Amino acid sequence: MRNEIVKKLTATMQAAGLDGLVCLSPENFAYVSGFVVPSQPLMRWRHAAVVVTADGRCAYLAVDMEETTVTSRVDGAEVRVWGEFTDQPMQVLAQLLRDLGLEGAKVGTELNYLFANDYAALCQASPGTRFVAADATLDRLRQLKTPDEIELLRRLARIADESICETLCEVRVGATEMDIAAGLTRRLYTLGAEDFKLMIVATGPRSVYPNVGPSLRRLEPGDICRVEIFSVINGYHAGVCRTACVRSAPPHAETIWNNLVACKYLVLDMIKPGASSKKIYEAFIGQLAKLDLPPIQFIGHGIGLHLHEEPYLGMYSDVPLEAGMVLGIEPLVYDTGHGFGMQNKDIVLVTDTGAELLSDYTDTDRLLAVQ
Amino acid sequence: MRNEIVKKLTATMQAAGLDGLVCLSPENFAYVSGFVVPSQPLMRWRHAAVVVTADGRCAYLAVDMEETTVTSRVDGAEVRVWGEFTDQPMQVLAQLLRDLGLEGAKVGTELNYLFANDYAALCQASPGTRFVAADATLDRLRQLKTPDEIELLRRLARIADESICETLCEVRVGATEMDIAAGLTRRLYTLGAEDFKLMIVATGPRSVYPNVGPSLRRLEPGDICRVEIFSVINGYHAGVCRTACVRSAPPHAETIWNNLVACKYLVLDMIKPGASSKKIYEAFIGQLAKLDLPPIQFIGHGIGLHLHEEPYLGMYSDVPLEAGMVLGIEPLVYDTGHGFGMQNKDIVLVTDTGAELLSDYTDTDRLLAVQ
Repeated sequence: MRNEIVKKLTATMQAAGLDGLVCLSPENFAYVSGFVVPSQPLMRWRHAAVVVTADGRCAYLAVDMEETTVTSRVDGAEVRVWGEFTDQPMQVLAQLLRDLGLEGAKVGTELNYLFANDYAALCQASPGTRFVAADATLDRLRQLKTPDEIELLRRLARIADESICETLCEVRVGATEMDIAAGLTRRLYTLGAEDFKLMIVATGPRSVYPNVGPSLRRLEPGDICRVEIFSVINGYHAGVCRTACVRSAPPHAETIWNNLVACKYLVLDMIKPGASSKKIYEAFIGQLAKLDLPPIQFIGHGIGLHLHEEPYLGMYSDVPLEAGMVLGIEPLVYDTGHGFGMQNKDIVLVTDTGAELLSDYTDTDRLLAVQ
Repeated sequence: MRNEIVKKLTATMQAAGLDGLVCLSPENFAYVSGFVVPSQPLMRWRHAAVVVTADGRCAYLAVDMEETTVTSRVDGAEVRVWGEFTDQPMQVLAQLLRDLGLEGAKVGTELNYLFANDYAALCQASPGTRFVAADATLDRLRQLKTPDEIELLRRLARIADESICETLCEVRVGATEMDIAAGLTRRLYTLGAEDFKLMIVATGPRSVYPNVGPSLRRLEPGDICRVEIFSVINGYHAGVCRTACVRSAPPHAETIWNNLVACKYLVLDMIKPGASSKKIYEAFIGQLAKLDLPPIQFIGHGIGLHLHEEPYLGMYSDVPLEAGMVLGIEPLVYDTGHGFGMQNKDIVLVTDTGAELLSDYTDTDRLLAVQ
């Protein structure tokens, strides 16, 4: 577990009148523990949890087959093990809560994550305990990154950016989208990422589809290639997207790209503590309007332990930015008229005085070109 | 959507007295539709669903930013779109159910997947509709694969097997686990996989940890390397695991490996329609007992749209095998005494008369050696 995070949690719990907190989702487990239980995000019935009490004690819940992995990471903290084929995990969790003195207490948990059947089982096994939703509280805490979290996100942003840029410089006309995926993942791991998420390799007419993975389509001259990937270490993500043309840009592509670059600098100039998330979005929309293309619903969002986190920089909310927030900023268009999409996603830290571009490997001022 | 699957579903619904079925999890969405909504498994609030009525009509629910992707894949079926920032998805789903004539009906859904808050919202938006758990029904249907599903799993097993085998033949002493990951993923995509899951690269002392990803650890002579990966196309998975020594095997490793190979053939010989899953497990345990090492809780499990599916071949259940089942068979030991783990995971089809090994690229009769 991570002392600085636990300290933030207990202060919040005391203010909210919570006696305990059960972090059950992979991202909030990683937030408190600093690591990911490998099979938890992959097999959702293999529940793992960290319980934090208002006085700062921590205890873990782990499925038997992950016991050795969890025990090796928790510096002697209690690990309560449940048997995948022999126990009802919510009953074991309820017993752990009792042993921590939380019977009949007010306990925060993640009702946007716990499954309907499991929630019913937990309530039944814990009569008298009052479970309340703590999802928003955890979301809010995770918005402001610690120095360690910022350092990790800087490293992750660099890995994703370099992997995409070098792969696009290496592939040639006739390569498949799968070849791009292969080069991208090879570099990502070589640079030290433990995992990745949401790899988008969308070329030619496929580039208008928001989130498509690689196919066997071959690169042709005049294609647009949208390539995005999130590199992952200890559950933390940084996503970068770059766009390239193949040899030469199709009509209007340069015009669109120059507008997206203008959007990037406009947004970077506006980001600072106290800036309105909605005003930044409106400025982006104003710049994008010169293209007469449908706008996306947000220009950016928080990032850290999930691909998208609060706050969104969009039209539906307005929050003041704060130092320590890390944002994904992604000017993009899906131009179905011309048959291609373009996107330029960067990772940006809100500093005490403005913005710091963390994904600074690729020169995006000019459209990349695959040869 | 896939007609053969929908036919199986409607027959089951009629037998169970269900008027409709809401498939919400990524795997059951893919089961009915034949494709994956890219961001659904990654951002769990981006709900996608397929609704099937007892008379065989299908309609889709999709988040706005995935509308183009979903619409391009459903052959003109209805796609009801909800706005990520403007709608409550369960209200839109409830309206879709009403429009399909399912108001007040008995509707099966996945209570092991739907989150507590969403389930409450769905019930509130659908007064009078009776939601019942259909998780087990869907699990059961998915056990028996169609010819198309078997063909896809055969292809996926081959991709995973070849990727691991060729990567282990290529790397050398001094390479890092990340280098193995890089070679593995490059091959996997080149061979046509769209995605992968649960990559295990566990070498030297790390090989005793069940599910660990790659690290920067370098290969040393005498290491054991456990390497597993699940290749993925259209949501279907096939997982293969291979073990290699580096240059020469540590003491006892050959003995353990020969036992695991004997386990493999013992199990392959026993697999056929009507065979007892528990008896196969017991025979495996009998063979493994010669090693005096702690047994794992199962020797195999179903596989298809999830990494693990029913039936398990273990000590806690007993089911007769049926033709059309596809199983992951994984003799393994974690020998903490000698400080290494070994595993040999294959994909096996239950045929009308016995077993067919789908992961047949690597010769596992002898322990692989990294040079």
